[in-house]
Amino acid sequence: MAAAYARRMSTDASRAPYTDSAAGAAVKAADRAHVFHSWSAQGLIDPLAVAGAEGAYFWDYDGNRYLDLTSGLVFTNIGYQHPVVVAAIQEQAGKLATFAPAFAVEARSEAARLIAERTPGDLDKIFFTNGGAEAVENAVRMARLHTGRHKVLSAYRSYHGATATAINLTGDPRRWASDTGSAGVVRFWAPFLYRSPFYAQTEAEECARALQHLEDTLAFEGPATVAAVVLETIPGTAGIMTPPPGYLAGVREICDRHGIVFVLDEVMAGFGRTGKWFAADHHGVVPDLMTFAKGVNSGYVPLGGVAISAEIAATFDTRPYPGGLTYSGHPLACAAAVATINVMEDEKIVEGAAHLGERVLGPGLRELAGRHPSVGEVRGLGAFWALELVRDRETREPLVPYNATGEANGPMAAFGAACKKNGLWPFINMNRTHVVPACNITEAEAKEGLAALDTALSVADEYTV
Amino acid sequence: MAAAYARRMSTDASRAPYTDSAAGAAVKAADRAHVFHSWSAQGLIDPLAVAGAEGAYFWDYDGNRYLDLTSGLVFTNIGYQHPVVVAAIQEQAGKLATFAPAFAVEARSEAARLIAERTPGDLDKIFFTNGGAEAVENAVRMARLHTGRHKVLSAYRSYHGATATAINLTGDPRRWASDTGSAGVVRFWAPFLYRSPFYAQTEAEECARALQHLEDTLAFEGPATVAAVVLETIPGTAGIMTPPPGYLAGVREICDRHGIVFVLDEVMAGFGRTGKWFAADHHGVVPDLMTFAKGVNSGYVPLGGVAISAEIAATFDTRPYPGGLTYSGHPLACAAAVATINVMEDEKIVEGAAHLGERVLGPGLRELAGRHPSVGEVRGLGAFWALELVRDRETREPLVPYNATGEANGPMAAFGAACKKNGLWPFINMNRTHVVPACNITEAEAKEGLAALDTALSVADEYTV
Repeated sequence: MAAAYARRMSTDASRAPYTDSAAGAAVKAADRAHVFHSWSAQGLIDPLAVAGAEGAYFWDYDGNRYLDLTSGLVFTNIGYQHPVVVAAIQEQAGKLATFAPAFAVEARSEAARLIAERTPGDLDKIFFTNGGAEAVENAVRMARLHTGRHKVLSAYRSYHGATATAINLTGDPRRWASDTGSAGVVRFWAPFLYRSPFYAQTEAEECARALQHLEDTLAFEGPATVAAVVLETIPGTAGIMTPPPGYLAGVREICDRHGIVFVLDEVMAGFGRTGKWFAADHHGVVPDLMTFAKGVNSGYVPLGGVAISAEIAATFDTRPYPGGLTYSGHPLACAAAVATINVMEDEKIVEGAAHLGERVLGPGLRELAGRHPSVGEVRGLGAFWALELVRDRETREPLVPYNATGEANGPMAAFGAACKKNGLWPFINMNRTHVVPACNITEAEAKEGLAALDTALSVADEYTV
Repeated sequence: MAAAYARRMSTDASRAPYTDSAAGAAVKAADRAHVFHSWSAQGLIDPLAVAGAEGAYFWDYDGNRYLDLTSGLVFTNIGYQHPVVVAAIQEQAGKLATFAPAFAVEARSEAARLIAERTPGDLDKIFFTNGGAEAVENAVRMARLHTGRHKVLSAYRSYHGATATAINLTGDPRRWASDTGSAGVVRFWAPFLYRSPFYAQTEAEECARALQHLEDTLAFEGPATVAAVVLETIPGTAGIMTPPPGYLAGVREICDRHGIVFVLDEVMAGFGRTGKWFAADHHGVVPDLMTFAKGVNSGYVPLGGVAISAEIAATFDTRPYPGGLTYSGHPLACAAAVATINVMEDEKIVEGAAHLGERVLGPGLRELAGRHPSVGEVRGLGAFWALELVRDRETREPLVPYNATGEANGPMAAFGAACKKNGLWPFINMNRTHVVPACNITEAEAKEGLAALDTALSVADEYTV
């Protein structure tokens, strides 16, 4: 798989420790004076000022460099500052940075073509948005208008975005404060054997019971009132719970039987993250609508979208689709997608992610789990892994309570601090750490990350019973 | 005002007629195969393939060049391909194209600082989004959490975006198909003397009655249940109805009296469009939250946001703000905003827009209205004008019915075709055409546009009584 790791084009010097503390202080001061940050208590945060980034690394203004195991918010699938994509953005900026959505524009046409070539089945029409939340909003709108029904089912342990419909579909605490509208959402439980809602002992049992639970929920909601079932193919921030074999095919069959639109949200799992172009490809399942964002252009320019089946697209053939946005199919964002997809092909980044999961991260993380009592479960694939940290492997009690803050979150905070001290920037959500680096990190970089995790997990171990 | 018009850096040759019909056909074919367009019946549209654009013009692949009186969707306030902003995007792409929102990043800090310097009053904290819809979603979330109240009042004849809350707030037919949730929205009537909902004869009367109507609506809704009043400072696509003097100050006073958050949506009217940085500046009114997008970086990279008052920001000082998005404060988008704002200062583009309105577009459009019986009213300011086309100036019967399609829309379709035949790309919404070019078009370009409108209005005249 050497090709997958062959893209480094700059010297080590370009990411050597960088020091200009005065510049960093100025960036930080202006941030604290004027930037209102996502998901934060503005007076309690202390954002790190970042000076630069390349590949799997970023660095601050004070001589510290970090291996980024988060790939931003799980979006820089090709790493930071890939020179081919940077050049493509620069070229498109010089040619036609922006143009309104009602027109045909080369970068927009080509991005849609390249995406449609890779999406499963007949998901060949692409509606572009600026990101994942808007993609979910539009997928739900399409499903409601296509079916003439109103209800939408989504799962606990999920995240779909922060606009009104998307946050209402979300099944994590980020929904709570905004749960004030978007009538019609019904939540159900998806399979998760490690913390089975169904008291299952095997994957096959979890799968069968989860499907029965969905059937039962639909029966009591009235299947003819349900427009869509919306699932992350593999729930991302909620915990990277890879569905048991047969589950997604089972949901597909249930949706077909009741005339319900099946929406798969691949905003985080799509575009190579799992070692295939889309996570649905692992299951041989074709949804009716598939949402994407993040990896489509590694977030170099904001872009998301919905891939639409032929049948749903036909609904809007003579009837106007009542949705849109100023920057739908933004040329600069689409040019970045074209370059990103071509780079992923040329450098075999999707295959590289599969290799990374099978040969490096999977074995490496399982080896750590064997030695660290704080690791309750390792799960994932490709460049998409979760470690479930627990106080007690027997009871599976989480290392910190659900949605803990402050002192109650102490053990995870200590784990995070240990990662950073060891040059690793970790992804932490509740009692989990996710290992979600760029899909094309080298084996050496992955091993550097595993070594730092090893040290940090020893800190977590101190909190086990 | 020569400085306002001094930015042209390329030769005429670079925008000379361009012909490569085969390339255009390929772009169009891929578009028709794979791009799902906003607000459209996919099988009935025939999108023009655009090869390039510069300043106030764009051109297709068949040798046709158009003067763009739409500035995209009213967003390229500095025109297409401004070389300084293009260079800034190229530089930032090479430096740090993207980075996650939890960090302090130079372009993000600087964009926030430059915006905060220009927003009125103490709107000094900036929450960045990808566009206007998400900005409105977050403004409503902030208002609800700040007040602990749920209802939101918005106006008929408005547009606020197409995500669930934003479309529900919208007061035009684009809402109808999506009006299925986001409980708590109450619509009222804003002032519009030409079609007064209050049977007023003068601006002063319209203002007083509109304020009384808002007071009455609040009284019957229960003011203590209302989180926010959301208004476009000057409604944009809905018709560029400049509010009468005193109206916005009156709404401000009503909101203050009832502890209601006053949200002004400046997505279209902001960043120079009206000849001031923000339309609110014409009225000396400071809202509690102000949404922006489009002109903030002329749409070169998707960006929007909310400017937040000190009081509302303080609500989220120790209490986490429960909203966010992957690309909040996207470095490439922010770098484009920094360059755009600096260019607008250096080239006096805001002052230029004021001059354009007072000396060129205002007098020119009123002169056309004097000669064309189809023009019922000319209204606007800066680079932000609407012509209300009517069958009959006496009765003010619109040239086409509200939300007309197909044959019923024939007169406006004929007007639009005449514009295009004369090298002018028009903005048309229902029975109106808006004159909303780049804020920095030259006087000669504006006069070229007025001449083409003159010809096209003769076609509209044929449908008058």
